[in-house]
Amino acid sequence: MMDLRKYQDIFLPAVEKEMQKILSINLGKFSGALQEMLSYHLGWESGTVIKKLGKGGKCIRPLLVLLCTEGAGQNWESAIPAAAAVELAHNFSLIHDDIEDVSDIRRGRETIWKKWGVAQAINAGDTMYSIAYKAMLGLEDTCNKEITIEATNLLGDTFIKLTYGQYLDISFESREKISINEYWKIVEGKTAALFGCSTKLGAMIAYNKEVEQDKYYQFGFSIGMAFQVFDDWLGIWGQLEKTGKSIISDLVQGKKTLPVVLGMQNSKKFARRWKEGGISTREAKDLAEQLRKDGVEQKVLFTAKELNKKALINLEELKIKNDIEIVLEELMDSLLNRQ
Amino acid sequence: MMDLRKYQDIFLPAVEKEMQKILSINLGKFSGALQEMLSYHLGWESGTVIKKLGKGGKCIRPLLVLLCTEGAGQNWESAIPAAAAVELAHNFSLIHDDIEDVSDIRRGRETIWKKWGVAQAINAGDTMYSIAYKAMLGLEDTCNKEITIEATNLLGDTFIKLTYGQYLDISFESREKISINEYWKIVEGKTAALFGCSTKLGAMIAYNKEVEQDKYYQFGFSIGMAFQVFDDWLGIWGQLEKTGKSIISDLVQGKKTLPVVLGMQNSKKFARRWKEGGISTREAKDLAEQLRKDGVEQKVLFTAKELNKKALINLEELKIKNDIEIVLEELMDSLLNRQ
Repeated sequence: MMDLRKYQDIFLPAVEKEMQKILSINLGKFSGALQEMLSYHLGWESGTVIKKLGKGGKCIRPLLVLLCTEGAGQNWESAIPAAAAVELAHNFSLIHDDIEDVSDIRRGRETIWKKWGVAQAINAGDTMYSIAYKAMLGLEDTCNKEITIEATNLLGDTFIKLTYGQYLDISFESREKISINEYWKIVEGKTAALFGCSTKLGAMIAYNKEVEQDKYYQFGFSIGMAFQVFDDWLGIWGQLEKTGKSIISDLVQGKKTLPVVLGMQNSKKFARRWKEGGISTREAKDLAEQLRKDGVEQKVLFTAKELNKKALINLEELKIKNDIEIVLEELMDSLLNRQ
Repeated sequence: MMDLRKYQDIFLPAVEKEMQKILSINLGKFSGALQEMLSYHLGWESGTVIKKLGKGGKCIRPLLVLLCTEGAGQNWESAIPAAAAVELAHNFSLIHDDIEDVSDIRRGRETIWKKWGVAQAINAGDTMYSIAYKAMLGLEDTCNKEITIEATNLLGDTFIKLTYGQYLDISFESREKISINEYWKIVEGKTAALFGCSTKLGAMIAYNKEVEQDKYYQFGFSIGMAFQVFDDWLGIWGQLEKTGKSIISDLVQGKKTLPVVLGMQNSKKFARRWKEGGISTREAKDLAEQLRKDGVEQKVLFTAKELNKKALINLEELKIKNDIEIVLEELMDSLLNRQ
């Protein structure tokens, strides 16, 4: 029986090949740095398949699309356009988020806006998003017209939710604190919606009924929630060098992640210091320690595990192939053991 | 027989109603300012159809979609989703362009980024673009699945071209001058592609063959080129208060429009002053007069008229209903007599 690693070894090169094909078809005729910006962001050397410039992301979302397609009873190859589409669209959102959050580093390298300026980074993101739709419409060749339209509608719905999450996140920036409900609303939009979209696409492409599709959505949605909470843990207590994101703690950046939301409620010392703002890298370590002492780290990890359990229950409710179920469990496990 | 005004009176309220419906369906469930930003940009009071806050644009593109659909032999009502989609997507590009060009005023009011900040303006544009795709996919209800997929592909292709034009424009900002060929490349992307898309959609929805669709595209493309050249004329010699865009001449903003490209070649006095940069509003009037003296204004207007003639020849080549042909000629005429 194949384990997660073997599926990754088959699926991910196929997704990357499709993404490169789509990029080349749609941007190949245009000269200049537009194609270069997109390739750079995706970790490729411009125009070639051969040389990888850097890490191109973990490709969790396309992996979910393909595993769920297989698990729901359809050949994974028919879902390749959808897998490429979600990864491209995810990367569009990262390019724009990096501008909005004024993030300098992504995957261990300078962000597009930092390298080419805000105006061209907006254009790069817009182009990536257009290309994501072009990718999704490729389902016409591997599936049928009905699925193609349904999947493209889902992509639109998902990115309205995703942008709404990003909008909420930014709109809360000026506030001293946010409620736990507000936190969940952000995470639902920014992260869980696209995870739900990815798993739902699997059921959609395998031509499952709406009720089954919704169950697949719920499963991916729960994984997304758990993923984000663990990401929040990484942002403060993780070994930062290994995530490749930034060596600066989320505390220094003033991000209102779950540890902060819970810290405001459960750690008076943290709350007092947070309200003053301007936390230095040195202080961030002490504050992380303080949050640990006051039980906040434990609460965060507990929440991630509970959400993961929920996803496991969702998974059991799916009529999914047994060997794929095991691989999905392995994937979920690996997401909560990232460093 | 109906004239242009009568078609506008029937078509444009139907397009606006569709846009409001699409916005309400897709954003109605989200609270906060996201919907407000989009409505504001479109000139509506948030959430209501009743009160217009300001000018919502001329709606030339949806008008072209509907006229061409009628002219190509299909009921215009079946094209309403496509007409709404091109107008929404056009407005997405305006929101992002205003950020990239650091424009404060649009249609006589503050731009979104000026009012809500750059980060939220990026989100507003992204949301508008997602909603444009949702609008286009509505063709499934009025036409068929094949046309829906074809039209959605065209929307993607068009906005890749459009963003490429915007990318070129920005990338030339640091240069002292651009060639006439580079100027045309920008205009093809930024303006003509979406005009061509609009007219082509008409033929597509009327289920015309590809060869006929391409002729419709060429017709719209030529209108777009003429439109942009005349827009460039307006930007320097137009009665600026009436365009609602900005009371600041394109010369003050340093835009490399056709009068500048031709001025660099045909007016030594202008070229010398332009190279120094930092033109004041007061100086802009004198420089506009200088360009007029050196025959540049005449060249610009001549170019616009030649492109318009080309569009008329394209129009004659279409198998289009006679009464619609006359209305399209009237529309083209009005575009070159805007103030």
